[in-house]
Amino acid sequence: MITIAVDAMGGDHAPRPEVEGSVLAARELSVRVLLVGQANPVRAELAKHSARNLPIEIIPASEVITMSDHPAQAFRRKKDSSVHVAARLVHEGRANGMISAGNTGAVMTAAKFILGTLESVDRVALAAPFPNARGGVSVLLDVGANVDSRPEHLLQFAVMGEVYYRATFGNRRPRVGLLSVGEEEIKGNVLTREVYTLLKKSPVHFVGNVEGGDLFSGSVDVIVCDGFVGNIALKICEGLAVSIFDLLKKSQGAFKGLKKTIDYTEYGGAPLLGVRGVCVIGHGRSNANAVKNAIRVAAGLARARINERIEQELSATAVPA
Amino acid sequence: MITIAVDAMGGDHAPRPEVEGSVLAARELSVRVLLVGQANPVRAELAKHSARNLPIEIIPASEVITMSDHPAQAFRRKKDSSVHVAARLVHEGRANGMISAGNTGAVMTAAKFILGTLESVDRVALAAPFPNARGGVSVLLDVGANVDSRPEHLLQFAVMGEVYYRATFGNRRPRVGLLSVGEEEIKGNVLTREVYTLLKKSPVHFVGNVEGGDLFSGSVDVIVCDGFVGNIALKICEGLAVSIFDLLKKSQGAFKGLKKTIDYTEYGGAPLLGVRGVCVIGHGRSNANAVKNAIRVAAGLARARINERIEQELSATAVPA
Repeated sequence: MITIAVDAMGGDHAPRPEVEGSVLAARELSVRVLLVGQANPVRAELAKHSARNLPIEIIPASEVITMSDHPAQAFRRKKDSSVHVAARLVHEGRANGMISAGNTGAVMTAAKFILGTLESVDRVALAAPFPNARGGVSVLLDVGANVDSRPEHLLQFAVMGEVYYRATFGNRRPRVGLLSVGEEEIKGNVLTREVYTLLKKSPVHFVGNVEGGDLFSGSVDVIVCDGFVGNIALKICEGLAVSIFDLLKKSQGAFKGLKKTIDYTEYGGAPLLGVRGVCVIGHGRSNANAVKNAIRVAAGLARARINERIEQELSATAVPA
Repeated sequence: MITIAVDAMGGDHAPRPEVEGSVLAARELSVRVLLVGQANPVRAELAKHSARNLPIEIIPASEVITMSDHPAQAFRRKKDSSVHVAARLVHEGRANGMISAGNTGAVMTAAKFILGTLESVDRVALAAPFPNARGGVSVLLDVGANVDSRPEHLLQFAVMGEVYYRATFGNRRPRVGLLSVGEEEIKGNVLTREVYTLLKKSPVHFVGNVEGGDLFSGSVDVIVCDGFVGNIALKICEGLAVSIFDLLKKSQGAFKGLKKTIDYTEYGGAPLLGVRGVCVIGHGRSNANAVKNAIRVAAGLARARINERIEQELSATAVPA
């Protein structure tokens, strides 16, 4: 039976959901669970469930890493944390895997240093599954295990993402896309153009560049990017989803209000700053209201003599050569 | 009176919304509009409105740049396009500004080459206003006028964004944030760490790094980033918004269905790929169902012997040293 070590102290509401989820898993999924954490609160929580005959064991860990802990410091100082102990259980082969809803940086640090990196892997990657418009799942990686990755790292992310996708979502030949700012090969930055070349030559089922909207379109299964970009992408999605729920909850005429609020045509389009003159670029799907608002914005910028002000401010800003 | 040149041929449904929006603007906003495009269709569209006494003039332009045109090629070859003519009207001082809902790349190219860049500006920037959770607007820039920007370019974006914000949204001292992967100064990539130092020393009202979720939180007014990152961010927002509307439209029990579909806790969290062992990282807000699903994912990955497969695939992938 597969054994999973659960960091019982990690999440914002620990250990309640960790214990309850473990009980559900042990009951439904034929896995064994090691609940790692401070024995008293975990035992008290477990006592609320009829878990006596379930394959669940409590493994004590005296320390707790909080969300506000600095990951590297917490890793060095709290060596008996539930994260450390869970990682050691995997390292020693007593568990097949670990899960944690705790401080992401601390979990990554512990995993990298206690579990170590695979032989063929230069950089680990954090992969995030997203629902897509076709009712399936697309996976984005890396969403923040690294910044400033090199091209060969992204190639490795592509391979790892493909293997993960096959293992979890059962697609034999997932389509892999590279997150960029246009579909053509030449579109992108220095990094993505090099990665494009590597991926084209690789055995990966690479379908080319994809854009931000493809996270949800379902046009690809695995989307590869630098961890800096991926982390920002992930946080945007979470932030936007939360905002939308808040709006829906607040509003009775939710749909209309929401539509108006996130309809960026209300804002009249995007000004191109820095050109001599005023230039506002709208969306191709602009309706009459959007066009009117774009005119309003352009007129407002002209009235405000925005370019004179930009020249002024920039002269006042010492820009190192 | 401020005069705005409107690219009447730009958008997906041109010239209908362009003409209607111009009529609305001329009627309500005390601006003069130059409708630039193929005279016959524009005149026919204008005839549908009672616009005889409005300050609207049609300026003929024989060519049309489509969404599928290559921006640089279209700029070189279609010199009598509505985009070219509108830009020339601004360049010659016959209009105070231009708006276009057309091919963004072509409009940027025309603006850069026909209008030219301001004296103090090294790189133009495209700025996108977003609604935020506080009921205000936050502005993200650059969302795609450049890739591979240097630190001093981002400093200029910050200044231009601040001036634009003051001119359009009337905040005297907008708070400027730098888009990164953590709030501390050391968080980020090589580029953002250098930009952080520049911004701190500048007269800009810089409040530090912000994360993806801050696009919507309203914690800052202006968010500065590289055009590669910004373009991906913008496309993600558009894609996610469209997906959510589609879901809301399709579903009767919209809210519940939506919640389930975009609730990534259903997917059991993010696996950290490349470590020796299985490590799944969930969200701090994980509920019991999320923990159960994370255990399911971890067990599935262990069962699938994902690491053996990663090692295998990576050995088969020739990674250039």
